[in-house]
Amino acid sequence: MSPNYDLVIKGATVVTEGGPRQCDIGITGERIAALGEALEGTEVVDASGLIALPGGVDSHCHIDQVDPQNGHGAESMISGTRAALAGGTTSIISFISQHAGEEIADVFAESLRRGETSLADYTFHQIISDPTDKVVLEDIPMVVAAGIRSLKVFLTYEDAHLTDREFLRVLAAAHREGCMVTVHCENYDAIGFLTEQLLAQGMVEPKYHAWSRPEVVEREATYRTICLAELVDTPIQIFHVSCHEVAEEIERAQKRGLKVWGETCPQYIVLGAKDMDRPGREGAKYMCSPAPRDPANVEPFWDDIRRGVIDVISSDHSAFFFSGPKNSKEVNGTDADFSQIPNGVPGVGSRMPLVFSEGVSKGRIDLETFARLTATNPARIFGLYPKKGAIGVGSDADIVLWDANRKVTITNALLQHAVDYTPYEGMEVTGWPVATYLRGKLSMKDGVVCAEPGQGQFLKREAYELATPRGITPNGFNAAKLPPQEKK
Amino acid sequence: MSPNYDLVIKGATVVTEGGPRQCDIGITGERIAALGEALEGTEVVDASGLIALPGGVDSHCHIDQVDPQNGHGAESMISGTRAALAGGTTSIISFISQHAGEEIADVFAESLRRGETSLADYTFHQIISDPTDKVVLEDIPMVVAAGIRSLKVFLTYEDAHLTDREFLRVLAAAHREGCMVTVHCENYDAIGFLTEQLLAQGMVEPKYHAWSRPEVVEREATYRTICLAELVDTPIQIFHVSCHEVAEEIERAQKRGLKVWGETCPQYIVLGAKDMDRPGREGAKYMCSPAPRDPANVEPFWDDIRRGVIDVISSDHSAFFFSGPKNSKEVNGTDADFSQIPNGVPGVGSRMPLVFSEGVSKGRIDLETFARLTATNPARIFGLYPKKGAIGVGSDADIVLWDANRKVTITNALLQHAVDYTPYEGMEVTGWPVATYLRGKLSMKDGVVCAEPGQGQFLKREAYELATPRGITPNGFNAAKLPPQEKK
Amino acid sequence: MSPNYDLVIKGATVVTEGGPRQCDIGITGERIAALGEALEGTEVVDASGLIALPGGVDSHCHIDQVDPQNGHGAESMISGTRAALAGGTTSIISFISQHAGEEIADVFAESLRRGETSLADYTFHQIISDPTDKVVLEDIPMVVAAGIRSLKVFLTYEDAHLTDREFLRVLAAAHREGCMVTVHCENYDAIGFLTEQLLAQGMVEPKYHAWSRPEVVEREATYRTICLAELVDTPIQIFHVSCHEVAEEIERAQKRGLKVWGETCPQYIVLGAKDMDRPGREGAKYMCSPAPRDPANVEPFWDDIRRGVIDVISSDHSAFFFSGPKNSKEVNGTDADFSQIPNGVPGVGSRMPLVFSEGVSKGRIDLETFARLTATNPARIFGLYPKKGAIGVGSDADIVLWDANRKVTITNALLQHAVDYTPYEGMEVTGWPVATYLRGKLSMKDGVVCAEPGQGQFLKREAYELATPRGITPNGFNAAKLPPQEKK
Amino acid sequence: MSPNYDLVIKGATVVTEGGPRQCDIGITGERIAALGEALEGTEVVDASGLIALPGGVDSHCHIDQVDPQNGHGAESMISGTRAALAGGTTSIISFISQHAGEEIADVFAESLRRGETSLADYTFHQIISDPTDKVVLEDIPMVVAAGIRSLKVFLTYEDAHLTDREFLRVLAAAHREGCMVTVHCENYDAIGFLTEQLLAQGMVEPKYHAWSRPEVVEREATYRTICLAELVDTPIQIFHVSCHEVAEEIERAQKRGLKVWGETCPQYIVLGAKDMDRPGREGAKYMCSPAPRDPANVEPFWDDIRRGVIDVISSDHSAFFFSGPKNSKEVNGTDADFSQIPNGVPGVGSRMPLVFSEGVSKGRIDLETFARLTATNPARIFGLYPKKGAIGVGSDADIVLWDANRKVTITNALLQHAVDYTPYEGMEVTGWPVATYLRGKLSMKDGVVCAEPGQGQFLKREAYELATPRGITPNGFNAAKLPPQEKK
Repeated sequence: MSPNYDLVIKGATVVTEGGPRQCDIGITGERIAALGEALEGTEVVDASGLIALPGGVDSHCHIDQVDPQNGHGAESMISGTRAALAGGTTSIISFISQHAGEEIADVFAESLRRGETSLADYTFHQIISDPTDKVVLEDIPMVVAAGIRSLKVFLTYEDAHLTDREFLRVLAAAHREGCMVTVHCENYDAIGFLTEQLLAQGMVEPKYHAWSRPEVVEREATYRTICLAELVDTPIQIFHVSCHEVAEEIERAQKRGLKVWGETCPQYIVLGAKDMDRPGREGAKYMCSPAPRDPANVEPFWDDIRRGVIDVISSDHSAFFFSGPKNSKEVNGTDADFSQIPNGVPGVGSRMPLVFSEGVSKGRIDLETFARLTATNPARIFGLYPKKGAIGVGSDADIVLWDANRKVTITNALLQHAVDYTPYEGMEVTGWPVATYLRGKLSMKDGVVCAEPGQGQFLKREAYELATPRGITPNGFNAAKLPPQEKK
Repeated sequence: MSPNYDLVIKGATVVTEGGPRQCDIGITGERIAALGEALEGTEVVDASGLIALPGGVDSHCHIDQVDPQNGHGAESMISGTRAALAGGTTSIISFISQHAGEEIADVFAESLRRGETSLADYTFHQIISDPTDKVVLEDIPMVVAAGIRSLKVFLTYEDAHLTDREFLRVLAAAHREGCMVTVHCENYDAIGFLTEQLLAQGMVEPKYHAWSRPEVVEREATYRTICLAELVDTPIQIFHVSCHEVAEEIERAQKRGLKVWGETCPQYIVLGAKDMDRPGREGAKYMCSPAPRDPANVEPFWDDIRRGVIDVISSDHSAFFFSGPKNSKEVNGTDADFSQIPNGVPGVGSRMPLVFSEGVSKGRIDLETFARLTATNPARIFGLYPKKGAIGVGSDADIVLWDANRKVTITNALLQHAVDYTPYEGMEVTGWPVATYLRGKLSMKDGVVCAEPGQGQFLKREAYELATPRGITPNGFNAAKLPPQEKK
Repeated sequence: MSPNYDLVIKGATVVTEGGPRQCDIGITGERIAALGEALEGTEVVDASGLIALPGGVDSHCHIDQVDPQNGHGAESMISGTRAALAGGTTSIISFISQHAGEEIADVFAESLRRGETSLADYTFHQIISDPTDKVVLEDIPMVVAAGIRSLKVFLTYEDAHLTDREFLRVLAAAHREGCMVTVHCENYDAIGFLTEQLLAQGMVEPKYHAWSRPEVVEREATYRTICLAELVDTPIQIFHVSCHEVAEEIERAQKRGLKVWGETCPQYIVLGAKDMDRPGREGAKYMCSPAPRDPANVEPFWDDIRRGVIDVISSDHSAFFFSGPKNSKEVNGTDADFSQIPNGVPGVGSRMPLVFSEGVSKGRIDLETFARLTATNPARIFGLYPKKGAIGVGSDADIVLWDANRKVTITNALLQHAVDYTPYEGMEVTGWPVATYLRGKLSMKDGVVCAEPGQGQFLKREAYELATPRGITPNGFNAAKLPPQEKK
Repeated sequence: MSPNYDLVIKGATVVTEGGPRQCDIGITGERIAALGEALEGTEVVDASGLIALPGGVDSHCHIDQVDPQNGHGAESMISGTRAALAGGTTSIISFISQHAGEEIADVFAESLRRGETSLADYTFHQIISDPTDKVVLEDIPMVVAAGIRSLKVFLTYEDAHLTDREFLRVLAAAHREGCMVTVHCENYDAIGFLTEQLLAQGMVEPKYHAWSRPEVVEREATYRTICLAELVDTPIQIFHVSCHEVAEEIERAQKRGLKVWGETCPQYIVLGAKDMDRPGREGAKYMCSPAPRDPANVEPFWDDIRRGVIDVISSDHSAFFFSGPKNSKEVNGTDADFSQIPNGVPGVGSRMPLVFSEGVSKGRIDLETFARLTATNPARIFGLYPKKGAIGVGSDADIVLWDANRKVTITNALLQHAVDYTPYEGMEVTGWPVATYLRGKLSMKDGVVCAEPGQGQFLKREAYELATPRGITPNGFNAAKLPPQEKK
């Protein structure tokens, strides 16, 4: 006879990578041991009428991270991963942040230490904001060897942005070490120029945040990033693409055969620039970068998502209290102008329900596309697959049971993060996660998170295997003869 | 304890829809009952070191079909499906051919009767060459109700080609009945014009077949087909796309949101126009329509395949004896000119090994893309999925075990079809199918086909569910107010 | 001293091919002998404050032509060319129409005879509707030798449309003889199919004319025309392009280096599909083919015009009495359905003022672009340049003086054509021609046409010089080895 | 009688803006007073068999300019304009160069003073390399008011490149003042990074100059420039576009309606990267930036030129002695590495013959296109038209007589510039200028320059008239509400 499993989830519509199948899931220990009919187990869960989806992989969330400009974020590893599990996400990728004057080895160690309290599985992108010789020649190799194979760079933000020269040094190091580089693409100088003009004219309210960074500013930085990555043959992911106009540049690159991926976030398919013009200080709740665009243009962007030009939807969870820095950075009685309000919206808990409701429930995408966008693709791109991101034999038993028909009105309390607001307050969604299993262990049921701090594991990742050298790249640069290197 | 399976295939690398997994396949009766570790079965097959792929679905092969211009094809249902099983294909779609003066009900019944001898599972596309009122109002609904939900039309060939008006009548009927329409896209008039010019100048050898139908002739008909299908909102598959230039028009249509799919065949990635210029009558062996193009241009076409613009590779198996009509249609002592030589090459048996070798072994595609191109996608597009086309719980146990490293030199005898030649004679491929299971039954092992005539089943298919009416189509035609219809 | 000229036009802003210049025009006999300052002449005209533009060349107007479906058009050569001169047009190209059973030699002679009454200079396009061996081997060479180097074919209309095979025969003959081919691009079969569906549902009013021929029907035929012309390497002009969507296909062809030109007409930049939905039978006044589209989409089309994708604006003048066939073809008491109403709108007289007002006065184009669109380009394309189409030394003194500021409300009477309506009745335009000179002779002044019948001359044209043979065309067809020919 | 002219050029084929005309040119004083037949003059020149073309306008040449990196260029105003006249160029635009620590007012005055020795007419682009508040708020307005309405910025070169923020300040100032901005588009940081890598590996020979700046480096900077100019709505010209790949980005911008022009130079259609690999130090003779590309790809680039995507061909004349800095910057016994060799090739004299020979004589362009590329378009774009750039009534009598059939082997001596080499040494061209008239005065005949120093005049230019404000730009930025400005 075939095995008796530790846990069998019976009766659900299981969303495999090929699409929905009617079958049982047999779990032994922490892994999926079988998909099949009539499986038997020590513990059996009746999931009739529910949909079993792979646990979400949120490959972009700022949790328990020190923000160079705004101090320590509001979200601790405990509160952030509690919100993740509540919202159907079982793995997160947060950030290790190097600030001026800090040693990467130190912040790396500190981040790993903080991770130990996580309720969900986790890893990090290593932010590089000062690519000295030591960083590119010693620190990046060390970090990759330790299981971190993705870097993050900013092309904007006062203390974080790199020059193109610095960016190339990071890209070349990534090429050598087998890393991917993720990029925040907005033109720092253009934003600075526009911000100066706006403030000089007294245009200081939150809505002018959008005026200070129009689409062309994001499109330019995206194209530049693609060119520089092409030059040294390094795979990249463009973070938080905000609109179709930017996605078009990514598609052009993909058609040329470049290793370029695109990510977006719920705020770019649900929110709009007008939200930042709400009365009083309310607009600050919707401020993130890039800025939300015109919702009237969202359908061509859904086409980009459907066709795979954009293939990951993460949260870019960034948590600042509205009763704190979001409302007014200064406490001296005057309102902060838009340039002083920290960017970012909380979203690790609302990501999966929003994409399910806007995508699946509204008929824009099917269930397997939902699974790809929220779990499989981020796992594949960032080296977590097949351990994470899919319901298949041998994968970790990270499974979320969804009630596709449940209508829920989002409130901040439901989302279980630390901060005091959600930009989606009052929005009704159709479809809601009712149970979350992390490596076979029930971690959320009916909104109650039953995981313990420290339950989450650090996800060590292998270095990226670069394609065989291509010799002459499309731009005539002989990459074979002159591999990206640094002078010793 | 979980079930004891009738048959367990152990140790293979199983190519699921998400990619390769190391697991056992548990088969109960004719279906896959489980994928899992440590499965137990009454019969156990050790497949260590082999790759388990879904049985091929060849959605385009002319087997046991009366050809309107060239008489009955050489391939009987028995010989054709024997070759299919030998080459790793477990389901085929052949054709029901309506000739002038024939009732569709009659040819339909006759085709089903012939199918009863099949060794592999099978269904048909219904060829429509004379869309009278009776055909569009009675016969097509009858055929669809009987489980045939795909039609085939020709835009070229003397006795088969439709006018645009006739084509629109078929497309509109397909829209009403929930059919897809597959199309041979070449401009009949242009080919006729060029052929007349060539023959008048004594350019009669096989190689002039390619001259009589250059790429632009195929590109024009493809664009026209897309426009006419757009007009009445009917899903179409462009058959045997021969090159990147044609695929570009398909991609443009897909980007506009039209329901257009593209298919190609091994002859367009392996053969070239020069093959038709081989000495003597040899060139006739390589004659098919569209004609093979310049192999130097094949890499951009592989890009189209990788990116999914072209998502099915079928064989377009068409079997005529080289010692017969292929060599010389006439037996009166003079060679036939190219226009008299029947078009088509045999390929049902060589399809899977050729695509595996050119695609997987040469590093152009991965295993899951191979499975998609040769099995999953044709099954999905033609209504056979998830019963056919994938290794997943609940699917038919159509499984082929591959030895990825075996090097085989193709000979006609190996392919087991009825005709006396293969255009791939002497070509060495890497990767070869060593066992084929059809619905759980071993049907080929080490080249010996052990299936019996009649073992194959007719695959009844549901009508296509059209997307909800779109109201105004992109060209401003109000499809909601004026659905495709016929006057009664 | 330099010459004393017969006539000097002084003080006007002269629109040369490079743009406006302040200078005098010296005319000797029928030609421009000098552009210069301080020219002296026997007769001097003070044109201060006016703009001197080249006399319009209307390369597409049906004047004194027997219509195969609707009998003889309402416009005689006298009335039609009177309207032309009144509207600033000095040269027209009408049509020689071959009907079933007629010899081209006969209709050719008859057309030339009718032309003798013309007030303006004139030539013809030869319509080919039955390309028999005699037509392509004898008649077309005869016609070209007689000075007609442009053919016209229809891809729609009951008695006029060609099959692709016939079309290719005409294109190949044109290639051999050095002709250009102009083409009415709409898919005959698709229009027939849609018309049948509409009439069967009782949708018979004029507005359904637009429903019977949506944009995709024109786009398809345009693409097909381009492909067939590419196949035999023949220059073509796409007649009356109605919208940006069609122009895009022309631009793609131009980027590939094909000899493809596009023409449009004022009705496609001024009228809209809604005009055909005016009350009662009024809609018939706006019926032409292709049908006017949505005016909201006209700006991208102006971009195509500005960028030269569309480089000619003709009138496609087609005159049927509204009190006659336009209102109701039948006189038996019931209204004609849309398919029985003759297509076409009058426009030879309103063309120049409409384009001036919509283009120049509204700031969409500059004066030299206006001259190019209405005179220079049609003259160049059809072999009349530099005799016609430009104000330059040696050119015929065809000059129109414009008052750029005059506001005029269009009435039918102002236009001086024979038919009893204009679709532009009541429209106010800015800019109006106040004097027209034909070969140095004042032919219209302040709306009074003072030319005499017979004053117009037949414009004999040289055969087109084809570019040197290109050998292998882009589609791989060896044009050098297999020039377009007919079997003898 | 009409006037007796001071000078009449008789019998030439005169290339007007509409194309070649057979007529006389009547010159009174310094201007063209008439084009006509049978003109009479005090002096009559028989130009039978010759072609009269507008005097060349070389809108990009570094003459008598202090180079920030390489000291004073070798070419004085006298030698440089002598070479211009010898080669058929009558007007040049050189540069006013602001170096670190210099006041623009000073260098402006100094440049004007140097100009006073010019043999040809002249003006300048103002280089901005340090856009302080004073520069953008005071100096640029002053310079524009003085008749300089074009600025030049560098995105690469050690002492000259601007950051994006600085670049935006210049673009905004140009928008306010009605200037165009010309841009050297290469990514400074990327070139620095690659150069460092190459030198570290000992790849120091001249050919590595091309390796240090592949096409993608130019394409990136071009796209970035277009985006920044779009942001503040400023017209730009991309200088010295080197290949089709870059031109494609310009064409995309033009299709979006942006005011973007493209320029190229003879070195990008005649030379190739291989030239820099000639033996010894020879390669240095061909070093310019961007680097010459692969000549095999030149035909698509000619298509861009023909279609007007690239509409100016200038020389980018940059003269350094081969016996001096070009050969070896250092005189200490060791060869300079490629990064130390000054960039640029001499070309003011060879520009017109090279473009005539490669373009007109080889059948790639017609005579009027040649005139547009080398004279009319640069004059139009830079505010010199209609005074300069065309043969038309009222224009300056800048006329060059060409012998279209003369075959000449280029030698350095023939070109009459100061430096000791030409990269075109030994190349045979067909077509040669045999006489040059500047404002009616014979200035070169049969290679002998007979103009005097000081004959050239400074060409004062009006500020650019910006199109009416567009309100919302394509990227959603409200340009009307937030015009480019600086805080006061």
